[in-house]
Amino acid sequence: MSEVKDYKYIGQRTIRPDGFDKVTGRANFGADLTLPGMLWARVKRSPYAHARIIDIDTSKAEALAGVMAVATAADFPAIASETLQMGETSADIRDLARNNLALEKVLYHGHAVAAVAAVSQTIADQAVELIEVEYAELTPVMDVLEAIKDDAPILHDDLFTAGLAETPETPSNIAMRMELKKGDIDAGFAEADVIVEREYQTPTVHQGYIEPHACTVRYDEDGQSMIWCCTQGHFDVRASTAKILNMELSKIKVIASEIGGGFGGKTTIYLEPVALVLSKKSGRPVKLVMNREEVFRASGPGSATRSWIKVGARKDGTITAMQGILHYEAGAFKGSPMAPGVMCVFTPYDVANVHIEGFDVVVNKPKVAAYRAPGAPQAEFAAESAINELADKLDMDPIELRLKNAAKEGTQAIYGPKFKAIGLVECLEAAKNSAHYKSPLGKNQGRSIAAGFWFNAGMSSSVVINMNPDGTVVVVEGSPDIGGSRASMAMMAAEELGIAVEKIKPIIADTDGVGLNSTTGGSRTTFATGMAIIEAAQDVVKQMKERAAAVWNVTLDQVDWVDGVAVNTADEARLSAAEICAAAGSTGGPISARASLTARGAGPSFAVHVADVEVDPDTGKVDVIRYTAIQDAGKAIHPGYVEGQYQGGAAQGIGWALNEEYIYDENGVLENAGYLDYRIPLASDLPMIETVIVEVPNPFHPYGVRGVGESSIIPPLAAVSSAVSNAIGVRMSELPCSPPRVLKAIQSRDN
Amino acid sequence: MSEVKDYKYIGQRTIRPDGFDKVTGRANFGADLTLPGMLWARVKRSPYAHARIIDIDTSKAEALAGVMAVATAADFPAIASETLQMGETSADIRDLARNNLALEKVLYHGHAVAAVAAVSQTIADQAVELIEVEYAELTPVMDVLEAIKDDAPILHDDLFTAGLAETPETPSNIAMRMELKKGDIDAGFAEADVIVEREYQTPTVHQGYIEPHACTVRYDEDGQSMIWCCTQGHFDVRASTAKILNMELSKIKVIASEIGGGFGGKTTIYLEPVALVLSKKSGRPVKLVMNREEVFRASGPGSATRSWIKVGARKDGTITAMQGILHYEAGAFKGSPMAPGVMCVFTPYDVANVHIEGFDVVVNKPKVAAYRAPGAPQAEFAAESAINELADKLDMDPIELRLKNAAKEGTQAIYGPKFKAIGLVECLEAAKNSAHYKSPLGKNQGRSIAAGFWFNAGMSSSVVINMNPDGTVVVVEGSPDIGGSRASMAMMAAEELGIAVEKIKPIIADTDGVGLNSTTGGSRTTFATGMAIIEAAQDVVKQMKERAAAVWNVTLDQVDWVDGVAVNTADEARLSAAEICAAAGSTGGPISARASLTARGAGPSFAVHVADVEVDPDTGKVDVIRYTAIQDAGKAIHPGYVEGQYQGGAAQGIGWALNEEYIYDENGVLENAGYLDYRIPLASDLPMIETVIVEVPNPFHPYGVRGVGESSIIPPLAAVSSAVSNAIGVRMSELPCSPPRVLKAIQSRDN
Repeated sequence: MSEVKDYKYIGQRTIRPDGFDKVTGRANFGADLTLPGMLWARVKRSPYAHARIIDIDTSKAEALAGVMAVATAADFPAIASETLQMGETSADIRDLARNNLALEKVLYHGHAVAAVAAVSQTIADQAVELIEVEYAELTPVMDVLEAIKDDAPILHDDLFTAGLAETPETPSNIAMRMELKKGDIDAGFAEADVIVEREYQTPTVHQGYIEPHACTVRYDEDGQSMIWCCTQGHFDVRASTAKILNMELSKIKVIASEIGGGFGGKTTIYLEPVALVLSKKSGRPVKLVMNREEVFRASGPGSATRSWIKVGARKDGTITAMQGILHYEAGAFKGSPMAPGVMCVFTPYDVANVHIEGFDVVVNKPKVAAYRAPGAPQAEFAAESAINELADKLDMDPIELRLKNAAKEGTQAIYGPKFKAIGLVECLEAAKNSAHYKSPLGKNQGRSIAAGFWFNAGMSSSVVINMNPDGTVVVVEGSPDIGGSRASMAMMAAEELGIAVEKIKPIIADTDGVGLNSTTGGSRTTFATGMAIIEAAQDVVKQMKERAAAVWNVTLDQVDWVDGVAVNTADEARLSAAEICAAAGSTGGPISARASLTARGAGPSFAVHVADVEVDPDTGKVDVIRYTAIQDAGKAIHPGYVEGQYQGGAAQGIGWALNEEYIYDENGVLENAGYLDYRIPLASDLPMIETVIVEVPNPFHPYGVRGVGESSIIPPLAAVSSAVSNAIGVRMSELPCSPPRVLKAIQSRDN
Repeated sequence: MSEVKDYKYIGQRTIRPDGFDKVTGRANFGADLTLPGMLWARVKRSPYAHARIIDIDTSKAEALAGVMAVATAADFPAIASETLQMGETSADIRDLARNNLALEKVLYHGHAVAAVAAVSQTIADQAVELIEVEYAELTPVMDVLEAIKDDAPILHDDLFTAGLAETPETPSNIAMRMELKKGDIDAGFAEADVIVEREYQTPTVHQGYIEPHACTVRYDEDGQSMIWCCTQGHFDVRASTAKILNMELSKIKVIASEIGGGFGGKTTIYLEPVALVLSKKSGRPVKLVMNREEVFRASGPGSATRSWIKVGARKDGTITAMQGILHYEAGAFKGSPMAPGVMCVFTPYDVANVHIEGFDVVVNKPKVAAYRAPGAPQAEFAAESAINELADKLDMDPIELRLKNAAKEGTQAIYGPKFKAIGLVECLEAAKNSAHYKSPLGKNQGRSIAAGFWFNAGMSSSVVINMNPDGTVVVVEGSPDIGGSRASMAMMAAEELGIAVEKIKPIIADTDGVGLNSTTGGSRTTFATGMAIIEAAQDVVKQMKERAAAVWNVTLDQVDWVDGVAVNTADEARLSAAEICAAAGSTGGPISARASLTARGAGPSFAVHVADVEVDPDTGKVDVIRYTAIQDAGKAIHPGYVEGQYQGGAAQGIGWALNEEYIYDENGVLENAGYLDYRIPLASDLPMIETVIVEVPNPFHPYGVRGVGESSIIPPLAAVSSAVSNAIGVRMSELPCSPPRVLKAIQSRDN
């Protein structure tokens, strides 16, 4: 366990290094790069949700003046099935290629079938209309429970359910079944005095990032290429693109632009290999940018789910059994976040008897992507709703019920580890003791709470620290900054070096400029890249002490490092970092250090949220009137950013709970492909979200850091919907709790 | 001494990594960056070669519509005198600032006095005309021998000759005197049977780079800044700019563009601090580009010299004494390459009695810059011409005379070291044995030879090597590639790693992206940065062996590394670099390595050139009809590039010998400020230059590398002018041997 240290920079609210660039508009995002001779591209998309491609005739498009290249899946090398670790999720490269450009079948409305590069966007737009695609239309399957029926239309003839005792002989839409068990579930329910059992439903949702997917690429005559794009993980863009196009990694340089939101949605690729093919065929740079409608129709949303939950407890509140069956929509290709959902769903509870089954199911919607704690909000919405209902039935306070059963240090988590120090109890206590939880409610108002659990990830990070001759510092990292990590990296370097954070410049290198870095996701960056920063900074300090020892002709153990100054313990002589660095050329060379690691011991993260809502009984409209997000940060490096993560996750979860859903027509066509009709919360929709940072140090990190980026999106779904339930007296088990659905519940109650 | 190794990649003629970019025009040079909202700038320059600035009135320029900022020296912070190590030369920052924008005095025609940034180049050009500068004109001094006279106009009231026993009480134009002595010079001449004594003169010359100085800069609201420029050393641009503007190094990112030639002329700065001031004042990015005329009038040429040389020998050819007095023009501010001239002038000879005096003298010309082996061509022109004359008087073959007196292993060089293995004798033997040297000459033709010596430099280099998961490699270096170093770096990495050079991508990072690197100059890059590459690559191999050992559960000494594959010596199990790198995430993290060093032991470099000329007796025009450049490379990493260096240096030296000179009028105004009137050799002027690569390994480098970039410019001055002497029978001691001067010599002979 980390001891509590007296930090100088850690825990401060330092100025963000990218602030001026962002507020002045100087920061360059995915669509902001323009190259000489660049072409503009557009993707031709499927008008059907499910169809076989009979023929693609690009000749008329190619004949249009100004068209420089046309690409179809035929331009991709044949790809054997291969799985690539892609940050939080793993992608099948063959599927990924077919998602980038459809081969043989289109599997959702908007599926890419071809692309054109032309000398203007207008010509590219005209040219895609001239591409003639002959389809054999098939019946789409749009719902996970429909898709698993025996007579459902089958999306992939070669998809056989994995995770069964035996691989089945017939293909199905169930890509995988997963099961976790502990104890004796039947005995557990037999012990219970009270049982809650219910089905839950969550819709397909969008991550709500503002910036559409975009890239500008260049493929040179010698096979060298460059990709500029907005992504959470430029090394994964490189890996995926290289695999799809059968290129060597050293032939692709990926530069991560600034990113206008990702939240998991930018951990995969849609455009880059297509644009590179167009660039290679045309010999010109190519820019390919999705419009908003394309983002909705053809990039990866959060998975829709259907869950069945059963929980039982003794009268004293001891939960004796928890059972769940979770169905996740994968969209057009296998790979929903079902597995993390299964692993998270009951993990806040230390319960003897647990049984969870999960199913990853393909449907004719775009392939889902990660969305902040992927899979967990859907599963834990169901579980936490059931726990709230259980508390109701037991006539117990929902916090007390959770405290009685909470996972804590020593709890054996069903997904593997025995927990070291974790902060769930501390978060529950903070909720219980909050002014918010003790405050009175008015008419038509309801309050509830929910807990949330997320693993957090470690994965690989590489950094370099270069000392300048004036003692200022450049920290070279390769984790795209999606939530303030430039600041946290500079702060950790400052702490180790004893050099003021203002003198430390964090930069995010392209894939050529620094060693491998896993995608920024899984709340891993401040934890794992931070560990690399700390390791490299410690190496810098060691080198600086060595230089000082050499100057003083003393042994290394006679040199202390105090606040950025080497101190000779014998005679109190001092050499500052600036003095040591200025002389470095003559004492052995410039001072720099690197660290590359695969971080282990990401600290499990727990959050507890308290939500108050007011329901308009006439319209069913729900207003969140007070909201508190409590979460264990382990150690908050930059509290302002940590609070921002808590608030951002809460806002997204509230939107998911109340309004957000993809609405498809009977042909599988999305009817609300834009922010006017797909309603994310605006600032004016939300109260100021209160935050409480709990700090139970992660014993595996030098400063005790846990990731903070994801857990905050988990509790709002159940906290808000249970608060609605409490306000109207009807159990809400389907999201979103939109006005029509709430009004219907009120009306059903009153009838 | 390095053993001769069996190399796999070293010594091959691999394809240059930047070839496609260069031939397609895709490569971006100094003027090629354009930023949104960018302003265009122009510098206001002095119409006088020497004047006091009474007043600068910028009000009319500022009032012109479209002008966004005006800068003068008043915008620079006050700078105390401070010397910064600047690659091959050292710069006084106070002088450098005043050379960038004149303060109090203008010291040469074209000296920058102010600058304007405007929304268009046209407006910027108009605006500088509206700046009113009131001058008090002073008499210029344009020649080094005039400048040292007691009654000469004094350029700097605060310049007192350094290097004397006592600092004098009155200022002078002599910035420094330097003296090197060995033995007893008078006794040496007393021993001599034959003595040659003569005065020599070399003109101010231009390095002949094609690309003018150019930069685009941005100074942000938070004090962060970016400089894009063509330079041989972006870290030195950063250091100089930071000092002049009193900024922290971490606040300046310098990106080195591709470079259209530098040859020493791009080791200093003229524009960057001025452009940054304009950017800071305007809040906009600024582009500032010299036109050709400005390059000639106001950037640093090669130093003009006046030398007196006296050499004596016994009849058998034993040189008994060598004496020289060398005067170098520094231009407007102190700091000619006098010191290396003094250190090089007689260094090819192992002679008992030597005496050299050197003088660094300011004159009203632009401050000189480095030019390929700075200082050495001028001094060795004089010395080698004298040696050729001595050979004549002794009736000895000039190669035999040199062989008899040649420096060799064990020779105590006058500038410090006792030579380890050096290749002068081998070069002389190669010349003697060449078909060229044995070939007959025709009418009006002459032949001669000359030797050349240059130290070569080491200095600091930092590199990082990143292994990609597919076993391809990125080599991150920070040495601008002015002569093919991308290729040599990739080749050395390939050799150490045992990975094909095509799989290795060398990139040149900006000042943020890699640790400190000294300027590409002093022929240091393949030597010193190469040493860092080798060290880092050896670390990579060690790490890969460690990973393999861990996989096999054996000790490290049981793992061999053979051609990029780890081999288990016990059971012949094998793991390729690609396999090890693919698994690196799960065996400890990504694999990368770094090295930062200050390289010692740069190998002294000797060259011997043979020149045949034909003189047109009617016009004095000289044609070089055959030319052979022989030089010790230590070990030629990429023979094609090495030959290119030999040929390029020879071409420049031939131009210096025959045609190039700055011609000033009586007011100190350059009359030939452009390539139409300043005549550098064209391809059509030169024969194919034959090359011989001698390889006497440098014992201080793992592969025996010596720098090859500079020595080749030294011999042509004496070789060609002595060949002219031999053709016409008149001793040519003043350069260039241009048609008027040669014709005059012929006429003086005939009269």
